Amino acid sequence: MLTAEKHFPQIISQLISFFDTLPGIGPKSAARLVFYLLRLPESDLKRVSVLLSNLKKKIRRCKNCFHWTTDEICSICLDESRDKNTICVVEDSLDLVVIESAGRYNGVYHVLEGAISPLEGIGPEDLRISELVERVKNSVKGGKEVEVIIATNTTMEGEATAMYIRDILKNIGKVKITRVAQGLPSGADIEYADHLTIVRALEQRSEYK
Amino acid sequence: MLTAEKHFPQIISQLISFFDTLPGIGPKSAARLVFYLLRLPESDLKRVSVLLSNLKKKIRRCKNCFHWTTDEICSICLDESRDKNTICVVEDSLDLVVIESAGRYNGVYHVLEGAISPLEGIGPEDLRISELVERVKNSVKGGKEVEVIIATNTTMEGEATAMYIRDILKNIGKVKITRVAQGLPSGADIEYADHLTIVRALEQRSEYK
Repeated sequence: MLTAEKHFPQIISQLISFFDTLPGIGPKSAARLVFYLLRLPESDLKRVSVLLSNLKKKIRRCKNCFHWTTDEICSICLDESRDKNTICVVEDSLDLVVIESAGRYNGVYHVLEGAISPLEGIGPEDLRISELVERVKNSVKGGKEVEVIIATNTTMEGEATAMYIRDILKNIGKVKITRVAQGLPSGADIEYADHLTIVRALEQRSEYK
Repeated sequence: MLTAEKHFPQIISQLISFFDTLPGIGPKSAARLVFYLLRLPESDLKRVSVLLSNLKKKIRRCKNCFHWTTDEICSICLDESRDKNTICVVEDSLDLVVIESAGRYNGVYHVLEGAISPLEGIGPEDLRISELVERVKNSVKGGKEVEVIIATNTTMEGEATAMYIRDILKNIGKVKITRVAQGLPSGADIEYADHLTIVRALEQRSEYK
């Protein structure tokens, strides 16, 4: 690690320490970033500074799906053209954005704000699961067929969360519960795929028409 | 690329766009970073916001060696215990910090603020070379033997800069000009070393006592 404190003015080492706490940024990249910032015009730094100090003030969670929004309800939930009876359950807002960017999904979402992880002390009650159950129950009351697509990660935590949600939703009835497919990513070389991916790709194979 | 603008409140996508411009951070990591920031307490964001808006106001270059500092002269140049007649020439302040962190160097530095790069239109006059020559001349006048260690990168630009500086300093006389050694990095597997590194490691081999 860089012993940055000694060799930098305090404001630089404070910023380096901050960047160093961010995910995926080590002490060397943190220093590199701050040195890059030093080369930017002061107006750019001022602008970012204002954005950062307003971030938490302006942003809240959608009351319906828990995606980030500036209003009570997010733009996706408000969009009339979207199918409200198809709910895609994701761990984080970032997952939502990635699915949106793919451009093929026209339902709505439900952001859990995490995954069940006994190791980190995160239980089902820490996630937006009761809110999901409430939403699904209300939709079912409306009489339409409801589909819940569980799109949590394919990690241990994501799978545990998926199973937990599946078991709870089953009890409601009249809900089609699906899970995103597992298999080879597109453009993949089978040679480099791990065992579990191969197993899933074989298990979930479909007829090749 | 994520088409982030559509799916985020504006303040979030503005911050993502900013992080995306930083070196080594792509659009996905940029989004990940901003989502991480959203989970931080507001006080943390406020603190960083203040640091960023003060960064350029508080920081300037040392008048002597051009390292970043908050005062006229940096702490390394002011340090009485350091050997002022050994000057290590580096491209950037970050290089200085890495050398300092290694903990074996007790001379002073000269930060060039870049390297000669005809492709990017950076010539010797854009770097702190005339200031270096001035410094060296003044030290030589003092009567002591002066050593200039050229520690620019071993890239094409760094080598060109090193050669240029060597040729200029030669004319001053009474200056010992050295260049940092090139060879295998420590902990390296020779199997994976590139040709030029092997060539340098052989050329610059030393007696193994």
